[in-house]
Amino acid sequence: MRKLLLISTVLVATAGAATADVAVSGDARMGLTSADGGKEFQFSSRVRIKFTLSGETDSGLKFGATFRSNDAEKANLGTAGTAFIDIPNIGKITMGDAEGAVQAAVVQFAAIGYDESGKRQELKFLTGGDTGKGTDLLYTYSSGPLAVSVSAGSPGTGSGSGATEGADDFAVGAAYVTEFWKLAAGFEDNGVHNQTVLSGSYGNGQAELKVAYGLRDDDETQYVAYGTYIFGTNTLTGFIKQDFDGLNYNGVGLSHDFGSGLAVAAGYATKEGSDDLVNFGATMSF
Amino acid sequence: MRKLLLISTVLVATAGAATADVAVSGDARMGLTSADGGKEFQFSSRVRIKFTLSGETDSGLKFGATFRSNDAEKANLGTAGTAFIDIPNIGKITMGDAEGAVQAAVVQFAAIGYDESGKRQELKFLTGGDTGKGTDLLYTYSSGPLAVSVSAGSPGTGSGSGATEGADDFAVGAAYVTEFWKLAAGFEDNGVHNQTVLSGSYGNGQAELKVAYGLRDDDETQYVAYGTYIFGTNTLTGFIKQDFDGLNYNGVGLSHDFGSGLAVAAGYATKEGSDDLVNFGATMSF
Amino acid sequence: MRKLLLISTVLVATAGAATADVAVSGDARMGLTSADGGKEFQFSSRVRIKFTLSGETDSGLKFGATFRSNDAEKANLGTAGTAFIDIPNIGKITMGDAEGAVQAAVVQFAAIGYDESGKRQELKFLTGGDTGKGTDLLYTYSSGPLAVSVSAGSPGTGSGSGATEGADDFAVGAAYVTEFWKLAAGFEDNGVHNQTVLSGSYGNGQAELKVAYGLRDDDETQYVAYGTYIFGTNTLTGFIKQDFDGLNYNGVGLSHDFGSGLAVAAGYATKEGSDDLVNFGATMSF
Repeated sequence: MRKLLLISTVLVATAGAATADVAVSGDARMGLTSADGGKEFQFSSRVRIKFTLSGETDSGLKFGATFRSNDAEKANLGTAGTAFIDIPNIGKITMGDAEGAVQAAVVQFAAIGYDESGKRQELKFLTGGDTGKGTDLLYTYSSGPLAVSVSAGSPGTGSGSGATEGADDFAVGAAYVTEFWKLAAGFEDNGVHNQTVLSGSYGNGQAELKVAYGLRDDDETQYVAYGTYIFGTNTLTGFIKQDFDGLNYNGVGLSHDFGSGLAVAAGYATKEGSDDLVNFGATMSF
Repeated sequence: MRKLLLISTVLVATAGAATADVAVSGDARMGLTSADGGKEFQFSSRVRIKFTLSGETDSGLKFGATFRSNDAEKANLGTAGTAFIDIPNIGKITMGDAEGAVQAAVVQFAAIGYDESGKRQELKFLTGGDTGKGTDLLYTYSSGPLAVSVSAGSPGTGSGSGATEGADDFAVGAAYVTEFWKLAAGFEDNGVHNQTVLSGSYGNGQAELKVAYGLRDDDETQYVAYGTYIFGTNTLTGFIKQDFDGLNYNGVGLSHDFGSGLAVAAGYATKEGSDDLVNFGATMSF
Repeated sequence: MRKLLLISTVLVATAGAATADVAVSGDARMGLTSADGGKEFQFSSRVRIKFTLSGETDSGLKFGATFRSNDAEKANLGTAGTAFIDIPNIGKITMGDAEGAVQAAVVQFAAIGYDESGKRQELKFLTGGDTGKGTDLLYTYSSGPLAVSVSAGSPGTGSGSGATEGADDFAVGAAYVTEFWKLAAGFEDNGVHNQTVLSGSYGNGQAELKVAYGLRDDDETQYVAYGTYIFGTNTLTGFIKQDFDGLNYNGVGLSHDFGSGLAVAAGYATKEGSDDLVNFGATMSF
């Protein structure tokens, strides 16, 4: 391998010049994963590359885009990856596989274990790019501790991520963040259902607790409570969840960081009525 | 994002050493586009990465290749992307999704608007890579103001881009370029039809006019007239076109350049018997 | 092309810092290839990019991953590309599209000609990533002249590369390497068949001879004898092979290296009962 980019720690300054650049980063993992509660394990590995494009004009207007190499064809069509323009004092406009405004505002629950453990910790959103459909628009504005967001699926076509035929989807969200606390709420409507989400988190740098609650217009509810505790270079995570169908989930994850991008992690996640997921292995970021 | 490549403005000299390198560049866009004359608009975004491979031997022989990440699988098969060798005093040989010799020689009409506006400004070629099939070969030679080109689809197999079963496709082109003028012509045959193309352009750095005319062997004709006017950091473009079916097209585009790779652009393009295309948005290059 | 990465010859030292990096390299080729013994030739070209991710912790633990851009989607699923961890004094663990332990241990036969000539020189392996299925694990350990390897397909699922339903595949290999000699052997079992492979090579830097012999449990055998001779910047290669079906192959290849990553190569390969393959063209590495 003749071409080694030492790009993680080197930043060449170009005094006074506006720039437009491409960054290449990556991640990988390898380990064992079980979909039947640990009776049988399978080998599981993954390698990915992420491209991050960024630019800034002399007047301070920032712009950029990002996608993963395995999404290259979808990014070319606008259904994966995102592009954005960030205008000082006006806000940031993101298009593509953009998050809905609720997801952008409320507290996030990172996947646990070495391979995401089925993402069983996730709150369900009705709108936005994570639903995997169409091209969405997200506008966010921050001022001191307050951030607001508004999003919409592609208008008039039912092509937005949460949209159904002939019904536009949209969402609004707001978050208030202090050094220790975050309080956030949002409302989203995908033309079939709407959902109101309330969330909060408290963290002191060593321990963090996050909760989120969603109320759908048919009175069904979902909630997640998620705790993180850091001791040394280890991180312990646990969650409980109930989805709109009333099914209960819980899970626990532990990771140990070797530094330089290498960590080992283990995860265990349950879902009422389904087999438990168990996994452990190494994660790498480059 | 830990890995930031400041690659747009930094060139590290390696005195006297022959090199073989990979460059990563990208482009993105986000905006609104209408396929029904402006009655309804949809969100439209795109992110792409382009790899450009280049090398030079000590003896001055240049070689290289290029493809977009969304074409990675096709580039592996030779039907997207191109590879070339450029031999001093002999010429450049390009293979892959290469342009036909007519397209390589005659004046080019850049797409207008933020999203190409359906490429309605394009002259139609009968041969070459843009037709999207097979692996083609293009040879070009330049000497002072004169450039000549010859191209062919893959021999004996009907697999060339313009080829039909059992019929090879080929093309020849020539261009004469001065500081202000370009005159170019070409002839191409795809085994079913042949076409003679004449084209010319005049530009003084602020305004430019381009015309191209194609005569098919069945006496059907096509033409494009295309004007560009630059004022400050704005570019105004307009075109009229008639295709082989006698259908008339016209279009107008306006773009404003913010520098650093960011621009905003709007486009409007008509096609006789079809709905008008309207679009506007931001374009980014990295 | 504004972004030129001069990455082949530049290595920026970051004293004492652990690193995690991404390297981008590429290869391309263009030439003529015939699948009918030279009666008809077709254009043939290819462009590829390879990502190589590498990291090292302060404690000396190395890790990394690699895949080609045209395999990006499979690499995301673990069936192409590989990830590895290399623990000092313990060994290297590779997962993904990993080679089987036999393939990893025994002598390798590089493809000849400009386009691999149908890979007719290859010994057939029963296990490991080259069979194109599933996620495999390979463990290798080296101590001085001795290297040992053990591999397995994904356990309990029949998803390993050589595995069949309900039958795990595994392999072991060992190699002893001196300055001039290499002796290596291996045993592999894919649940249907097993194979014992013996191989050896002798090379003095100018000439090299390699042989490999495989005995399957049904007493069918395969063998390859492969010679390479280097004169100046030219490399001449020839091989003879017999596969498990008793079919004979032979081939000859010649390449000339221009330096800087550019070479021209020609190849000719036969297979009993099939048309001869003939090819010549340019190969490029970046």
